[in-house]
Amino acid sequence: MYSSIAQANEAIIERIKAARPHWIAVRPAAEAVPVLAQGRKLLHAGPPIAWAQMTGPMRGACIGASLFEGWAATQADALRLLEAGEVEFIPCHHVGAVGPMGGITSANMPVLVVRDTVHGNQACCNLNEGIGKVMRFGAYGDDVQQRLCWMRDTLAPVLQAALETLDGGVDLTALMAQAITMGDEFHQRNIAASALLLRVLAPAITALDRPKTELAAVLRFLSVTDQFFLNLAMAYSKAVMDAAAEIKAGSIVTAMTRNGREFGIRVSGLGDRWFTAPVNTPQGLFFTGYSQADANPDIGDSAITETLGIGGAAMIAAPGVTRFVGAGGMGAALETSEEMEEIYLDHNPLLQIPSWDFKGACLGLDIRRVVETGITPLINTGIAHREAGIGQVGAGTVRAPLPCFEQALEALAEAQGITA
Amino acid sequence: MYSSIAQANEAIIERIKAARPHWIAVRPAAEAVPVLAQGRKLLHAGPPIAWAQMTGPMRGACIGASLFEGWAATQADALRLLEAGEVEFIPCHHVGAVGPMGGITSANMPVLVVRDTVHGNQACCNLNEGIGKVMRFGAYGDDVQQRLCWMRDTLAPVLQAALETLDGGVDLTALMAQAITMGDEFHQRNIAASALLLRVLAPAITALDRPKTELAAVLRFLSVTDQFFLNLAMAYSKAVMDAAAEIKAGSIVTAMTRNGREFGIRVSGLGDRWFTAPVNTPQGLFFTGYSQADANPDIGDSAITETLGIGGAAMIAAPGVTRFVGAGGMGAALETSEEMEEIYLDHNPLLQIPSWDFKGACLGLDIRRVVETGITPLINTGIAHREAGIGQVGAGTVRAPLPCFEQALEALAEAQGITA
Repeated sequence: MYSSIAQANEAIIERIKAARPHWIAVRPAAEAVPVLAQGRKLLHAGPPIAWAQMTGPMRGACIGASLFEGWAATQADALRLLEAGEVEFIPCHHVGAVGPMGGITSANMPVLVVRDTVHGNQACCNLNEGIGKVMRFGAYGDDVQQRLCWMRDTLAPVLQAALETLDGGVDLTALMAQAITMGDEFHQRNIAASALLLRVLAPAITALDRPKTELAAVLRFLSVTDQFFLNLAMAYSKAVMDAAAEIKAGSIVTAMTRNGREFGIRVSGLGDRWFTAPVNTPQGLFFTGYSQADANPDIGDSAITETLGIGGAAMIAAPGVTRFVGAGGMGAALETSEEMEEIYLDHNPLLQIPSWDFKGACLGLDIRRVVETGITPLINTGIAHREAGIGQVGAGTVRAPLPCFEQALEALAEAQGITA
Repeated sequence: MYSSIAQANEAIIERIKAARPHWIAVRPAAEAVPVLAQGRKLLHAGPPIAWAQMTGPMRGACIGASLFEGWAATQADALRLLEAGEVEFIPCHHVGAVGPMGGITSANMPVLVVRDTVHGNQACCNLNEGIGKVMRFGAYGDDVQQRLCWMRDTLAPVLQAALETLDGGVDLTALMAQAITMGDEFHQRNIAASALLLRVLAPAITALDRPKTELAAVLRFLSVTDQFFLNLAMAYSKAVMDAAAEIKAGSIVTAMTRNGREFGIRVSGLGDRWFTAPVNTPQGLFFTGYSQADANPDIGDSAITETLGIGGAAMIAAPGVTRFVGAGGMGAALETSEEMEEIYLDHNPLLQIPSWDFKGACLGLDIRRVVETGITPLINTGIAHREAGIGQVGAGTVRAPLPCFEQALEALAEAQGITA
């Protein structure tokens, strides 16, 4: 169908530019991902991984989810269950989902549902819990359980009811186009998008026929959860890249993700195959009392943002974040985006960055360029404590490992009938 | 008390840096400005001006206020009243107030009250009505009247009730410190500050014991009024510069304002005296159907933002706005702020601008530097139609006229016993 890789890549880029994902619903995960409805199953971040290989934060989140689902009454019971292999694990990416950090998502957790109104495909992501001791970073204590229950019983139904009053849901492209001019890169900085989203939601939430205490609690949560929009940016990126992946040719990366051990990528011309290599460990700044020695290796589906070309590649949009992730000031931000520009094929006309003289965010990550230049994608990321039960300890940057791109390029050559 | 102008200026700068204005209340103007309580009086923008000299938009706003206060039942009645000299005019700046564009403020209009928690002084400003046909730009029709009544009867009491639940009101410095990293310069762009303010207000508003329809209407208004924060930024700047003006020495500008005819400045070492010169007419971009020929000459107290060092001087913080005001891209924004840097004495450590490599906004506008360099302050501004009754027709930039700085410098030399 495509006479060259370049032509296929052009078709992919066209689909990325055409996509218009809207946030349309908040649903129990088992509704959005029907496979979760039966038996003990958990979604996890990254390419496939078994319990025995999982690192601390993902294990902690599995314990948290087992307690949340009522599969176990204590941490010890949950561990026994998980070690006995009584829980089935499925990568989020295998079922149209993404999840930050551990990515652990169970049947009764609510998920954000995003629909690409142009191509018709959907993607989902669990909801941001806020910062500190949270399940996605491996915490699972009582406070975590209480918050998860509140999110299921109050936050999710209120958001769903508010969304139902907004005709067509929330146009995320329009919102992100504005937020990227306000310092967001949508991975480690989402405060503008979260605030703009609250502007859309607050009038709708206030008008709902539900107890005021509930509505005020939801608005309080949204008003202090600076990273609330991250999970929407992830579902957005997943929806866009899934639409792009329908062009089953070319050399553009359609997913990048990490499970704490392996970094996995998928490439447009190579379908659903994972190409993996051991993850690096993020370097960055740590909360008081923690240090680099506490950092878990790279983990989470959130690198779907860098797959689209935001996050680390859009560092110049968010010079404020360069300090948060320990990457210097404005000059460093510009250098990062200029370096990333070498491995992406195009710019996104929908996401113009004023501090880049209105150039669009990067778009179309090409494995050929990565291998030719040796430049690997830079990812802005939260840092989880390496042990289960503790949570977030910092934020930083990490590089994707080169070998998965090299393997993918070899496989692409092979698929094209070019053998080394 | 001060042995040199430089020493006095240092003391002023110290007060500017120390000021911490909080938004503490919304009150009827007559309560915040008691002189309005008796007789027919209107506050107006700029240095003193009589009805006969007022330009179209200020006249239109006077008609609007006369109708709003019930002094007249029709436009013709209002005009008769105004022409007969039955309304007394007082500059906002003479009573601790500021007002955008016409600045027309009457007894029963609500005002935002801001208090500098460090120096104890207060300042106030009327509330932003949104865009288009609004009183501050000279419109006065039924839609304008209806909105003003709604603002008095619903918006103001809801905001006041919400503020009462926020201990100590809203710390505007903290909010602005964040918003300036999100693309606001606080004169023509306030969307980040307005959104961040909504984050603070929404939970409090939703929890109020008032009809839900009222609360939802207030949140709807706040969620689409991108310039809502402008009026708070003006009251903030007024409070800071009034605190600074207590040092009755030195060469720092403590107020810049325009009445549509004259541009007026006040200088720290010269007390409440106005130094005036004819205003320029803003150049910029116009809404569909309007052009430069429709532009009213420069008008409004909003140049109090540039007096503090935000607005036009902080153009580099808001490269997005350079396009809105027709001033080019990122390079032009940087040039503007670098040019302004030559006439301000210092940088504001509270308002760091990431896209200026985290340099603070300008601070301490020195008449000596203006006269020495011939560089006059650049002001970002809305543009009113020159005729009464029409409203906003565009946005642009305008320069303060040099002669008022020259006159002030001569007066300062005289006051110091140095005669030319």
